Amino acid sequence: MTQKASVTAAVLVIGDEILSGRTRDANSGYIADYLAKIGIDLCEMRVVGDIEGEIVAAVNALRQRYDYVFTTGGIGPTHDDITADAVAAAFGVPISEDPRAIKLLLERMKPAELNEARRRMARIPQGAELVENDISKAPGFWIGNVIVMAGVPAIMQSMLDRVAPKLATGAKVVARTIEAGAMFEGTYAAGLGEVAAKNPELSIGSYPSFHDGGFHNQIVVRGKDAAKVAAAAEAIEALLSRLVNVRV
Amino acid sequence: MTQKASVTAAVLVIGDEILSGRTRDANSGYIADYLAKIGIDLCEMRVVGDIEGEIVAAVNALRQRYDYVFTTGGIGPTHDDITADAVAAAFGVPISEDPRAIKLLLERMKPAELNEARRRMARIPQGAELVENDISKAPGFWIGNVIVMAGVPAIMQSMLDRVAPKLATGAKVVARTIEAGAMFEGTYAAGLGEVAAKNPELSIGSYPSFHDGGFHNQIVVRGKDAAKVAAAAEAIEALLSRLVNVRV
Repeated sequence: MTQKASVTAAVLVIGDEILSGRTRDANSGYIADYLAKIGIDLCEMRVVGDIEGEIVAAVNALRQRYDYVFTTGGIGPTHDDITADAVAAAFGVPISEDPRAIKLLLERMKPAELNEARRRMARIPQGAELVENDISKAPGFWIGNVIVMAGVPAIMQSMLDRVAPKLATGAKVVARTIEAGAMFEGTYAAGLGEVAAKNPELSIGSYPSFHDGGFHNQIVVRGKDAAKVAAAAEAIEALLSRLVNVRV
Repeated sequence: MTQKASVTAAVLVIGDEILSGRTRDANSGYIADYLAKIGIDLCEMRVVGDIEGEIVAAVNALRQRYDYVFTTGGIGPTHDDITADAVAAAFGVPISEDPRAIKLLLERMKPAELNEARRRMARIPQGAELVENDISKAPGFWIGNVIVMAGVPAIMQSMLDRVAPKLATGAKVVARTIEAGAMFEGTYAAGLGEVAAKNPELSIGSYPSFHDGGFHNQIVVRGKDAAKVAAAAEAIEALLSRLVNVRV
């Protein structure tokens, strides 16, 4: 939609099952990757449980700070699905059964099947736009700068695809990864710090991993100016070449 | 160490690489699972980037609310490793090279190898206890109720093992999972809500997943009173049995 220099976002994952360790959250990593590709800078993520006060506080803290807030989880038909009511409370708007959402649900089920629990999935805060998905008919919604999506990954992903074309986006981040391999971080840290200090507009990170009994390091340069990213990456490659025979 | 009715915690993941989508955070899920098993209730998780002000704000918000805060990431030797300095700033205490940490580093490297970058890994806020690990010699630390650990999963896990015996813990949560299979959430939602309303001290969640073209639902009952968890699980199993021939 709109193109700005920088568009920021936060992700808010809602669900006791993530905090209890039962479910490993796959949505936040998916959204992080997705937003980077379309030019939105993800600045923060939070996970809170199924507690209205916690959801309200997190939504309000995040929506005031960032251009967009993407929530996942808590919009199903069961008693623990309280996200829609919590978001309405955060915005201070009424919530009620939305005829557009009822219509969507009736595309998938017969009127006799639309029991009270399923009608809960049509509760939408006043002023929100629906966010449809291709898997279930139960919609998420978009109110203010908050986009409320399902927790089931396939449904969340479909909702994100529906929303993405309507989002304001900024310049995309370009990333270059330099393999440092088994060279110690402590060997290249000083030189890398100098490159970083000369390029304050770039994000330069050193990422060790430990496997097969040893460290394997990668350096990542990220930024919105492709030429500067390339120049910094070349400077780092040159640094590593100079250090290759250093043993410490 | 101490046994209390309830001990709460938050996890703070620090690192641009998680927000950019480059790295999928595996630490928070591991810690969630670990804390549940030892009787600590994880109440919130946050991910922030490598920005001192953000780390300070998150550490201070979380350490005031929860019994423990576990941080991961940002304690290596490179310029982007700023967690120790940020935590010192959050506590308003000085930070300097800690002789105990230098001693640990010298167990792994020769004095000539201990360059300025590596000495950064010995910067520890005043008043903190070191948290050792079995993989690298570079320590994390524990200050107040904040436990600062590495981002490399194998090192973080080793640090958590070192810290765990010293943590106050509460009653462990008992969990029972009931398979609802292909039965729709909307079919059992009303009955499940009644069981939940009768058991406000339990956390009862319904978790749909979508794969192989259909929904597969699980219901999880969690609580600290095993007898109540078992009774609620049996009530839910009876509910599902009554509904098994309901088609909607």
